[in-house]
Amino acid sequence: MNQILDLKSPAVFIGKQGNGVISFGSGQPDLPPPKEVFEGIDLKRDLRYGLIQGELKLRESLAGEYPGSTAKNFVITNGASEALDLIFRSWGKGQKVLLPRPYYYSYPPIVEMAGMVPVYTNLVDGRIDPDDFKQKIKGCHAVLINSPSNPTGRVEAVETLKEIEKVTQKLGAYVISDEVYKDLIYERENYHIQGDHVITVNSFSKTYCMCGVRVGYLWSADKNLVNNVCEIKTHTSMNTNLVGQDMAMSAMKAPKEYIGRQQKIWRERRDFIYRVLSDLGFDLWKPEGAFYVFPKCKNARQFLQLLYTEYKVITYLGEWFGAPDRIRLSYALDIRQMEEGLERIRQAMKKVSVL
Amino acid sequence: MNQILDLKSPAVFIGKQGNGVISFGSGQPDLPPPKEVFEGIDLKRDLRYGLIQGELKLRESLAGEYPGSTAKNFVITNGASEALDLIFRSWGKGQKVLLPRPYYYSYPPIVEMAGMVPVYTNLVDGRIDPDDFKQKIKGCHAVLINSPSNPTGRVEAVETLKEIEKVTQKLGAYVISDEVYKDLIYERENYHIQGDHVITVNSFSKTYCMCGVRVGYLWSADKNLVNNVCEIKTHTSMNTNLVGQDMAMSAMKAPKEYIGRQQKIWRERRDFIYRVLSDLGFDLWKPEGAFYVFPKCKNARQFLQLLYTEYKVITYLGEWFGAPDRIRLSYALDIRQMEEGLERIRQAMKKVSVL
Repeated sequence: MNQILDLKSPAVFIGKQGNGVISFGSGQPDLPPPKEVFEGIDLKRDLRYGLIQGELKLRESLAGEYPGSTAKNFVITNGASEALDLIFRSWGKGQKVLLPRPYYYSYPPIVEMAGMVPVYTNLVDGRIDPDDFKQKIKGCHAVLINSPSNPTGRVEAVETLKEIEKVTQKLGAYVISDEVYKDLIYERENYHIQGDHVITVNSFSKTYCMCGVRVGYLWSADKNLVNNVCEIKTHTSMNTNLVGQDMAMSAMKAPKEYIGRQQKIWRERRDFIYRVLSDLGFDLWKPEGAFYVFPKCKNARQFLQLLYTEYKVITYLGEWFGAPDRIRLSYALDIRQMEEGLERIRQAMKKVSVL
Repeated sequence: MNQILDLKSPAVFIGKQGNGVISFGSGQPDLPPPKEVFEGIDLKRDLRYGLIQGELKLRESLAGEYPGSTAKNFVITNGASEALDLIFRSWGKGQKVLLPRPYYYSYPPIVEMAGMVPVYTNLVDGRIDPDDFKQKIKGCHAVLINSPSNPTGRVEAVETLKEIEKVTQKLGAYVISDEVYKDLIYERENYHIQGDHVITVNSFSKTYCMCGVRVGYLWSADKNLVNNVCEIKTHTSMNTNLVGQDMAMSAMKAPKEYIGRQQKIWRERRDFIYRVLSDLGFDLWKPEGAFYVFPKCKNARQFLQLLYTEYKVITYLGEWFGAPDRIRLSYALDIRQMEEGLERIRQAMKKVSVL
């Protein structure tokens, strides 16, 4: 029974929901998008090819959120994933890319598929260790940071981000800052790492609960990078879907309070799951952003199998994120469901030694 | 004046339309989509992540068009471009891929970006030469064919396609058949090249005049290929935009006559531009499908510059398609505009020797 699931990747759980299953797996909001997303969308718009770089109006709106920017600094992409993929593909093969570990599970394959070589700096308490960072960044073409982090839920200290800014500028290394959870910070305002060598990657997916629409973007002050990315995208996917871009543009009209309201919901959920898992005896970090907890867990594979097959609960292996001694739980589900799911976890803990 | 445009790629003409410019450049229908595309679309659908492989209903509908297929044989992609990109990325680096030349200008970069090596078989009169094909396919992992062809406008003979089927099956080489113009054949029904080693790439863009929505797909009988493509797409773009997939699904409800009506329009335009260019003395093939003419043209760079800068006419360099002695004209514009554009070309021919 323990070997029923082939736990190679999160794909093992595709199509395994419904039928009483409670999923702490999926990394996406369960909430609906703000109503603004749907307002003023005209499907009968011009549906011929759009600009590879993205619709001018959307890029102009984004420029308003990035001081000193113009539409030329942005490329609209099929989610943040495509932005990352295009950035790495635009660089020379064989160069090193620094990845903090644990990492979002797509980072190593994206880097490797581009022919680049991932090297790792291990997070300490879920955050970057500036000393190790300074050692490992030497000789790297770029570093990819992710604050708030999936899977650790941690937010980097402002001082760390400023130090990364300085060190990388001095060494001439790029910083790719994946900020898809930037609006889901509970503890403080986000600090946007800055500089000519910084490439910001972002998305409408998490902030506006529209993951399936697949609209993300990159920001860069580096004209060559923007041009090279557009050149590749010309061949590999062309413009990002136009209706999605219109919806993203509309989403930006949602009032500021929308984001505040979302944060309140996420904070409550965070507090709830953190308290219950702590009470159950799990050793875990308190998330400061995003919507993941990443507790330590012995016999993680066995526990994951049991949880799914006997208790209809989905969780993700820490191994997929570079941390074999942990499991990841998304708390993108309502508190009532979480209560039930966590009760099942409590039962399962009697059968497998996880603490 | 002749060096005003940097004629490296079609990108030179981005943003250069309007203001009296007549463009024979762009490779997309100017006609509106059928009304069915917009019917029954509910933006307020579930906008969470969809299946990486594509919406089940859309794949089931497609299966109805591919005898003996099921939804499992399809992957829905961000246009045919992404389908091609994913296929090549799923294969081992260093292997050879056969490309008929002239080719669609994205083919060589897509193959090369995947770390594969393009080799070429030169078309004869715009079509594959079976003898040369049989020589060049040896040692290749795959061949990428495109019938009807962009840029030649030619359709491969059924016998040629059947011979390619046989030869490749014998050698164990894949055939990728890019059939995005399959519904735009004027001369005969399309023959769908078949076999377990065939991968068909298609799109809703040209048939249903919805290029900017970016929905395409691949069909394959090879489970491993489908799985590998989905695995890559998980990291590089995730699901194809859901609203676009709904629109594609609706488009399939357009009556058969819709395609017939489109073909009639394209045939008229083809007849018109073919006659006028022939009368002007150009040496060109009569297109049998798609919407491009590809006449021979001396001093093509100089002529292209002149046409744009002095006569506000956009045409594409054959060089971008692997044919330096030709230019490409799309006839995806109405006959009145074509008349004006061709008159300007007639005037420009007095200043540059092109015949």
